[in-house]
Amino acid sequence: MELGIIGLGKMGLNLALNMTRQGHKVVGTDINSDSRKQATKENIPTVDTLSDLLMTLPERKIVWIMVPNGDPLQAVLDQVINQLNPNDIVIDGGNSNYKTSQAHGKRFADKGIHFFDVGTSGGTSGANNGACLMIGGNKEIFSEIEPLFQGISVENGYMYAGEVGSGHFLKMVHNGIEYGMMQAIAEGFDVLEGGPFDYNLEEVAKVWNNGSVIRSWLMELAEDAFKEDAKLDNIKGIMNSSGEGKWTVETALDYQVPTPVIALSLMMRYRSLYDDTFTGKVVAALRNGFGGHDVEKK
Amino acid sequence: MELGIIGLGKMGLNLALNMTRQGHKVVGTDINSDSRKQATKENIPTVDTLSDLLMTLPERKIVWIMVPNGDPLQAVLDQVINQLNPNDIVIDGGNSNYKTSQAHGKRFADKGIHFFDVGTSGGTSGANNGACLMIGGNKEIFSEIEPLFQGISVENGYMYAGEVGSGHFLKMVHNGIEYGMMQAIAEGFDVLEGGPFDYNLEEVAKVWNNGSVIRSWLMELAEDAFKEDAKLDNIKGIMNSSGEGKWTVETALDYQVPTPVIALSLMMRYRSLYDDTFTGKVVAALRNGFGGHDVEKK
Repeated sequence: MELGIIGLGKMGLNLALNMTRQGHKVVGTDINSDSRKQATKENIPTVDTLSDLLMTLPERKIVWIMVPNGDPLQAVLDQVINQLNPNDIVIDGGNSNYKTSQAHGKRFADKGIHFFDVGTSGGTSGANNGACLMIGGNKEIFSEIEPLFQGISVENGYMYAGEVGSGHFLKMVHNGIEYGMMQAIAEGFDVLEGGPFDYNLEEVAKVWNNGSVIRSWLMELAEDAFKEDAKLDNIKGIMNSSGEGKWTVETALDYQVPTPVIALSLMMRYRSLYDDTFTGKVVAALRNGFGGHDVEKK
Repeated sequence: MELGIIGLGKMGLNLALNMTRQGHKVVGTDINSDSRKQATKENIPTVDTLSDLLMTLPERKIVWIMVPNGDPLQAVLDQVINQLNPNDIVIDGGNSNYKTSQAHGKRFADKGIHFFDVGTSGGTSGANNGACLMIGGNKEIFSEIEPLFQGISVENGYMYAGEVGSGHFLKMVHNGIEYGMMQAIAEGFDVLEGGPFDYNLEEVAKVWNNGSVIRSWLMELAEDAFKEDAKLDNIKGIMNSSGEGKWTVETALDYQVPTPVIALSLMMRYRSLYDDTFTGKVVAALRNGFGGHDVEKK
C-alpha cells in the first residue's frame, strides 16, 4: 500500500518505520522541520508540506494522521478535506475525543471521503514493533485496508470496533482503565514504602510479574523504573494527563455510569499538580476555627 | 524433601500435586474427610489427623499449612506448636494478617521453631502449575528450604521478602492493588456497556490483551469470562472480599499513607452487597425535605 503520514512525532515516526518494514510505501510530513529531518535520517521519505504530500500519493489517497488533538488536528483536517476526493481514506490515529471524531466522520462522509478513527495503544515501542489498534469506520472500506492494520499490529492486536467514533471511544475507556490501574499499583507501592518493612521494590515488582494475579505490562514498566532508580528519587510525583481520563469521566457522567475509581484516579492526578491546595488551607482554617487546632503558617 | 501439608482445599491440594511433581514426598491431612478423599483420588497420601501427620514425618519436620485464617489457622498452630521440636519448620502459606503472622513467628521462635509466612498468588492454577510466593522468615533457614519454594514457583516467581510478617504484608498489598485494578477494569467495561456503541466485550478484552498498555492477567480472565457469558447475564454483581483489601486499607490508615483508590475499591465491594442502601434512603429523604423532590416508595 502507498500512504501518507501526517505527523512524524514519536508515535507517527515509529508507525512509519513499522509500515515501511511491512512493505508499505510511506511518505511523511510534519510542520516541525526537526521531525522531518529525524524521519529522513531513519530512511522515511518526507516532503515539506501537506500539499506536497498529497501530490505524491497515488490517485486513491490514504492519509494517516498522527498529530495532537485539538487545533493541530483540526488544521490538518481542514486542509486535507479540501484536497482529497471521494473514496479517499483519512485515518485519525491520534487520541481524539470520540464526539469530535463523530463530527469529523460526518463532515468527511458528506464529501464521500472515508474517515476512520483509530485508537492506538502500546506506546512508542508498540507503534514500532506491533501496536494495538481500535478501529472505527465503514466496515466495507475497513476490509479493503485491513491488511494495513493487521501488519502493524501484534497478533490479534487490532479490532474493528464499529461505526466512526467507536474506535476512539474504546481507546478513551482503555485509558480510563489505565488511570485506575496505575493509581492502584502506585498506592500499593506507597504502602510498601510507608509500612514497617524494607523492601527492594524492583524485586517486588519482579516477583509480582511472575505468576501473580496482578502481573501486567504496567507492573513490568514499574519493574524497569525501580531497576533504574530504586526509590524513584530522581523524579517528582507529578502526574500529568492528556485528556482521555477526563473524557472517560465526562462520558460516565453523560451516561450516568458510576465510575468512582476512575474518577478518583483522575482527581488524584490533579491533586499531584499542586504542592499545596486551597482545600488544605480551608480545612486547616476551619479546624482552627472550631477547635483551636494549630495551623502551620507560611 | 519430605513434608506435611495441612489443609487440602483448592489451594492446598494443588500445591501438594505441584510438590509431588517436583519430587517431594508429601503427606496431607484435612479435617474435612471429603477433601482427604479427593486428595487420595489424586494420589496424594493422606492421614486422618494432624497427630498422625506429624508422626509420619521424619525427625526434622516441615509442615506447610494451607487453611483459612482466623480460628481454623489458630487451631492448627495451637496443636502443632506442642508437637514440634526446635529447628522444625512451619510454613503458613495462607492469607494471614501480617500482624498475626508476626505474633505467630514470635511464639514459634520462643520454642526454637522456624516460622515462615508465605503469601501465595496465582490462584489455583498457579498453585498447581507454578505459583508466585512472597516469603518472610529467617534468612538462613530460608536458604536451606529455598529449593522447595523455587520448585513450585514459576521462574522468578518467589521472593525472600525479609523478616517474619513481610511475606504476608507483601501479599496483602498485592491483593489491595488487585482490588483497585479489578475495579478500574470493571468500571471501564461498564462505560462500554452504558455508552452509545455496541461492543463485543470478548473482542474488546482480547484486543486489549494484545499489545495494549492495560494487557494483564486480569484482562485475560475478563476475556475468558466474556467468552463464556457475553454480557455476564448469568451472574450477580456481588463483589465479596476475604480480608486482604480491608487489611491494606487498615495498614494505610495505621501508617497514614493515602490510598484513596484502593480504599474506594473496597467500599464499592461493600456497596455491592446491598440491593438498596440506608445512605440512599437518607439522601432521598433529605432531597424530599428541602426541595420536595419525589421519593420512590417501597
